[in-house]
Amino acid sequence: MLHFDSDYMEGAIPAIIERLAETNFCQTSGYGTDEICESARARIAQACQAPEAAVYFLVGGTQTNAVVLDQILQPWEGVISASTGHINGHEAGAVEGLGHKILPLAPTDGKLVAADVRAYCEAYFGDANRDHMVAPGVVYVSQPTEYGTIYSLAELEALSAVCDEFDLAFFADGARLGYALAAPGADATLADLARLCDAFYVGGTKVGALFGEAVVFPRPATCRHRKGADRAIDQHFFTIVKKRGALLAKGRMLGIQFDELFATDEVTGSLRYLEAGAHGVTEAQRLVQAFREKGYELAIDSPTNQLFPILDDQAHARLSQDVSFSFWERTPDGRTITRFACSWATRPEDVDALIALL
Amino acid sequence: MLHFDSDYMEGAIPAIIERLAETNFCQTSGYGTDEICESARARIAQACQAPEAAVYFLVGGTQTNAVVLDQILQPWEGVISASTGHINGHEAGAVEGLGHKILPLAPTDGKLVAADVRAYCEAYFGDANRDHMVAPGVVYVSQPTEYGTIYSLAELEALSAVCDEFDLAFFADGARLGYALAAPGADATLADLARLCDAFYVGGTKVGALFGEAVVFPRPATCRHRKGADRAIDQHFFTIVKKRGALLAKGRMLGIQFDELFATDEVTGSLRYLEAGAHGVTEAQRLVQAFREKGYELAIDSPTNQLFPILDDQAHARLSQDVSFSFWERTPDGRTITRFACSWATRPEDVDALIALL
Amino acid sequence: MLHFDSDYMEGAIPAIIERLAETNFCQTSGYGTDEICESARARIAQACQAPEAAVYFLVGGTQTNAVVLDQILQPWEGVISASTGHINGHEAGAVEGLGHKILPLAPTDGKLVAADVRAYCEAYFGDANRDHMVAPGVVYVSQPTEYGTIYSLAELEALSAVCDEFDLAFFADGARLGYALAAPGADATLADLARLCDAFYVGGTKVGALFGEAVVFPRPATCRHRKGADRAIDQHFFTIVKKRGALLAKGRMLGIQFDELFATDEVTGSLRYLEAGAHGVTEAQRLVQAFREKGYELAIDSPTNQLFPILDDQAHARLSQDVSFSFWERTPDGRTITRFACSWATRPEDVDALIALL
Amino acid sequence: MLHFDSDYMEGAIPAIIERLAETNFCQTSGYGTDEICESARARIAQACQAPEAAVYFLVGGTQTNAVVLDQILQPWEGVISASTGHINGHEAGAVEGLGHKILPLAPTDGKLVAADVRAYCEAYFGDANRDHMVAPGVVYVSQPTEYGTIYSLAELEALSAVCDEFDLAFFADGARLGYALAAPGADATLADLARLCDAFYVGGTKVGALFGEAVVFPRPATCRHRKGADRAIDQHFFTIVKKRGALLAKGRMLGIQFDELFATDEVTGSLRYLEAGAHGVTEAQRLVQAFREKGYELAIDSPTNQLFPILDDQAHARLSQDVSFSFWERTPDGRTITRFACSWATRPEDVDALIALL
Repeated sequence: MLHFDSDYMEGAIPAIIERLAETNFCQTSGYGTDEICESARARIAQACQAPEAAVYFLVGGTQTNAVVLDQILQPWEGVISASTGHINGHEAGAVEGLGHKILPLAPTDGKLVAADVRAYCEAYFGDANRDHMVAPGVVYVSQPTEYGTIYSLAELEALSAVCDEFDLAFFADGARLGYALAAPGADATLADLARLCDAFYVGGTKVGALFGEAVVFPRPATCRHRKGADRAIDQHFFTIVKKRGALLAKGRMLGIQFDELFATDEVTGSLRYLEAGAHGVTEAQRLVQAFREKGYELAIDSPTNQLFPILDDQAHARLSQDVSFSFWERTPDGRTITRFACSWATRPEDVDALIALL
Repeated sequence: MLHFDSDYMEGAIPAIIERLAETNFCQTSGYGTDEICESARARIAQACQAPEAAVYFLVGGTQTNAVVLDQILQPWEGVISASTGHINGHEAGAVEGLGHKILPLAPTDGKLVAADVRAYCEAYFGDANRDHMVAPGVVYVSQPTEYGTIYSLAELEALSAVCDEFDLAFFADGARLGYALAAPGADATLADLARLCDAFYVGGTKVGALFGEAVVFPRPATCRHRKGADRAIDQHFFTIVKKRGALLAKGRMLGIQFDELFATDEVTGSLRYLEAGAHGVTEAQRLVQAFREKGYELAIDSPTNQLFPILDDQAHARLSQDVSFSFWERTPDGRTITRFACSWATRPEDVDALIALL
Repeated sequence: MLHFDSDYMEGAIPAIIERLAETNFCQTSGYGTDEICESARARIAQACQAPEAAVYFLVGGTQTNAVVLDQILQPWEGVISASTGHINGHEAGAVEGLGHKILPLAPTDGKLVAADVRAYCEAYFGDANRDHMVAPGVVYVSQPTEYGTIYSLAELEALSAVCDEFDLAFFADGARLGYALAAPGADATLADLARLCDAFYVGGTKVGALFGEAVVFPRPATCRHRKGADRAIDQHFFTIVKKRGALLAKGRMLGIQFDELFATDEVTGSLRYLEAGAHGVTEAQRLVQAFREKGYELAIDSPTNQLFPILDDQAHARLSQDVSFSFWERTPDGRTITRFACSWATRPEDVDALIALL
Repeated sequence: MLHFDSDYMEGAIPAIIERLAETNFCQTSGYGTDEICESARARIAQACQAPEAAVYFLVGGTQTNAVVLDQILQPWEGVISASTGHINGHEAGAVEGLGHKILPLAPTDGKLVAADVRAYCEAYFGDANRDHMVAPGVVYVSQPTEYGTIYSLAELEALSAVCDEFDLAFFADGARLGYALAAPGADATLADLARLCDAFYVGGTKVGALFGEAVVFPRPATCRHRKGADRAIDQHFFTIVKKRGALLAKGRMLGIQFDELFATDEVTGSLRYLEAGAHGVTEAQRLVQAFREKGYELAIDSPTNQLFPILDDQAHARLSQDVSFSFWERTPDGRTITRFACSWATRPEDVDALIALL
């Protein structure tokens, strides 16, 4: 059986496993206060060209989204998200569970459009009853989106400008960030995210780590969200992480993983994290091309590590004999939109085998 | 420098690291639905002599306490805890953060006393204004306690009987459970916990794992807490775990660790988890004896993996040159209660070295 | 100046003020346990033909929506609402503030459509990842809606049938219920609501009272929402009301108001509450007719106490000189949708005066 | 039957009922934005000698405590309270229900002692693990306390000084404030509270109103609690009040009541609120003297409107035939501590009748 179900079916890049073994009996202090975490933080800050950045390590994506939003949102505020955003549909109500409302906007290609955010804010600030309403406080995007699409640099800059205009914080969910960075045509870098966002995270779980998400506050001392306030955006964040059950006792497990992911590969000279992302994208785009060449329709034009072929029942049944993949949704004309996911760990020979089956 | 700061300074038992390496490129489904987690669940249920038990794997202790209490408590209820309980003092308000009140009772030797719980319940149920008050819904204990003391079987049975009397659920925090099971004089087994509690967890983070806590609902289909209700105690627990940000995507990481901890050691024929606990207790009790023999006073009589020597300023300064350990509290007569922790990973030669320094 | 801004600009029907004066020095027990509240409860239950009904008095609408939903929703569930529902847009995130997600559906004429609710539930229950999603638990409607439209009996029956099909609770917000009951063409009675809903409330604040909403659980002992469970739907509701800050100490203030509203008018032989509603509808519909006759367009066809004329800038400026009314929204062609509200207290001569100004 | 059960058994001072009747058909805007509320706010600010004060009207005490604390507390903070504080024991977990921990300290005569608060804060700030703990953020007192005792000016100044020292906010629950102000020996005035507290409320429900509590932020623009921050302490408080279901639609009902309570009595020249308090205290202290003269023991020396006689079973049975009063607690020697409450509405002839029965 060939497995293209998801991008979290394997363990971690070998360097992580090796480092875990090497350091197993080292003694370090807990909760991310150790030197390995320090090193990992420094490497991430450097990769983001954000020397002032505060970096925190959390365990998983839903947790990270909920805790960071809990940190940034004021009690009278909510978070603007595409209605298809992961926080809105597939996190079991984690954000609302901490008392915060999601303000969903209709997406275009899975993405929030700056003009729509502006229109929403104008309507809110122009409404005489706005004190009876949840104020927009944060704009949430995921890069790439749940549909595998990516924001261009210009799109991120436009969103950031709207945030400036209305004093909103800008937060990017990077659960699959490595695949966005490596996508053909991608023009927004880690440094761009650090420049444009108030907070974002570098996803490890789906891009080469066993688990772990690195939250980056590029300019912690100030907060666009609270102009004029001297409150650091990460004020008491450690305690909030603890309160929300997201603090790992043996924090170095996270440090080890990000220190390895943000190490430079000796052979290629590039960051392992970027290489992990590039591998997943390369294999996925090989599949995209093959599906197209064999006449399959793709539901969405995704340049990252996921593809969404539309299969008729016959093709679906035939492929299912040898390949596992995900159901996405049913089309009105009775076909099935499916999802095939590649990752840092996808074996090229599995991709070849799948192509042969198409 | 000798480190006796805490019981989570090292990684994991070697079998876990080996299994991680071996399985690294296996492909499994996520969120704990894989076969390794299945195996680990079966082993834990067997060790607890609770074939019907539902077992879930979470990441850390604060998270587990908050999520399990969130699952069990009804909105009008609170949890009875020793005022010194970990949930009450050292979890940053995680339980209250989810909307639940802790009802603190004064402890004896760090433990809740059944008669005090009964008196509290009698006062509540006898109060004409009780509908204006938080109802006791769950009794929380930790085994061992934050002071390293353990509940005897008789004490647990007495608490369980009070729970029966007042329809309370009984929940045991086993963050360091392995050390309680191995303590000299301990007479409450895993099977006893499964028989007496409605929920408890087997702590991995501090007893041989990189991270991970195994929550056991011994009789999930019924719930003493809700007599007559047909509600399973773990109804929709998966979704609550997700909502609270506690669901690990690559769930097999937890399965691997507990499958190894609950494997039988080939040489000794006993469970690795119990052996890990026994090692920590043995080394700690060697220290206890040495401190006593050298004339030091111990603040608490702890039979597990922690000890609490009282040091005068001179001894404190002298030992601090070569050993790291924790501050616990200051005594009225100007000395310091300290904490030295051993663990599954403590090197006997480090204990010898420390003894030589006393 | 003529005031058509809202339906809560005046005090209460005179009978309430008189009763407050008469009873002012009576001594009664608190929190709704007095005989006046008992009498009011009995009258409401009778008017609903629901002799088993449990009736509770709360203070205001946002509070009532949030507390009732908090009572009914399980932690893994959310509430289906029209996206235009009051809870979704104009209650400052009160429902999310208690940890619950609103699941918004696009409305038709401000109303939820049964088929849309069914489709949503089918999608949810057919989704293999539904355990990562918020489960639909309650269907929320307002009668009348925020747009002044009303659900027909057939529409309510269809929604109730969907609730049966998917084990959902059905909750109706009746903040303006008196106006829906009196609307021309309305065929759903209080008894129908009691038969079809699991919970609803009779709004006093906007229909003749100083404040107050009467929550009705028509069949408290059972709960469609929890088939098979023996849990009463109002189990410990008193304590939840207290916990949520919604318990009025001098509960008889609420009893007095509903006892008077549900008293039979000696002259007309009908309930004062229904008469209060009828008055507001009559005056509003006089305005509707007049606006139409004078050639104004109405944005929505509302049969209750609110109307939504579309005014061009000239008409808007002219009317604003002598009349106060609300802004609703701007049309694409540059006109303004406005809201004029009548109520139980609207003076017919004010309506005449407004008509003369049109 | 003579009723001394509680201080909320009657309606309101006659001036309030008259004003309700007079204004019944006035048309005003909602939510406290009307002129009557404006007038009431100005009168309260003047009585507090706090011209800058922001005043908000809420409905009841539990609601007010929870909403104000929700406003002031940061997510990593909790509120220090006497363990006997109303928020800790008799508000059904309202504060925790909004996610905040109460940090209980043992009281002296029902009161928090400044030295104990200082010791708590010193322990917290001196604890190396404090980031794992809930930070003290607010000090909560009630004036008078649940035991009828009052803080002297010196005691309030000492608490305020501790708040200064540790950057805590100081909040006083004045549900029965009128009785504290009128107590013999009371030396803390409204102006003192305004000077020393960051927030407090003037209770109406128990002191002459039908319902209502007036929250005063004496210096809203600044906040001792957040030194250096430019955040107003009442920033977006209107929206938080709405979110927590505490906003009254017909806000003038609250304005009317406080405008009357803070009007100057034409005959006596003093504020009606103070007179209402004085009446309750006078009658209660007549009872205190009578109980003492007849040889009864009083459990607590309360100078306000409540007294706590200890009755043996015989006296208890005898008095219960003609008088209703409250159970407080059982003494170890088998007698009963009871509570008798007087109020602004207590009839002197009822007090005489009770004295005759002693």
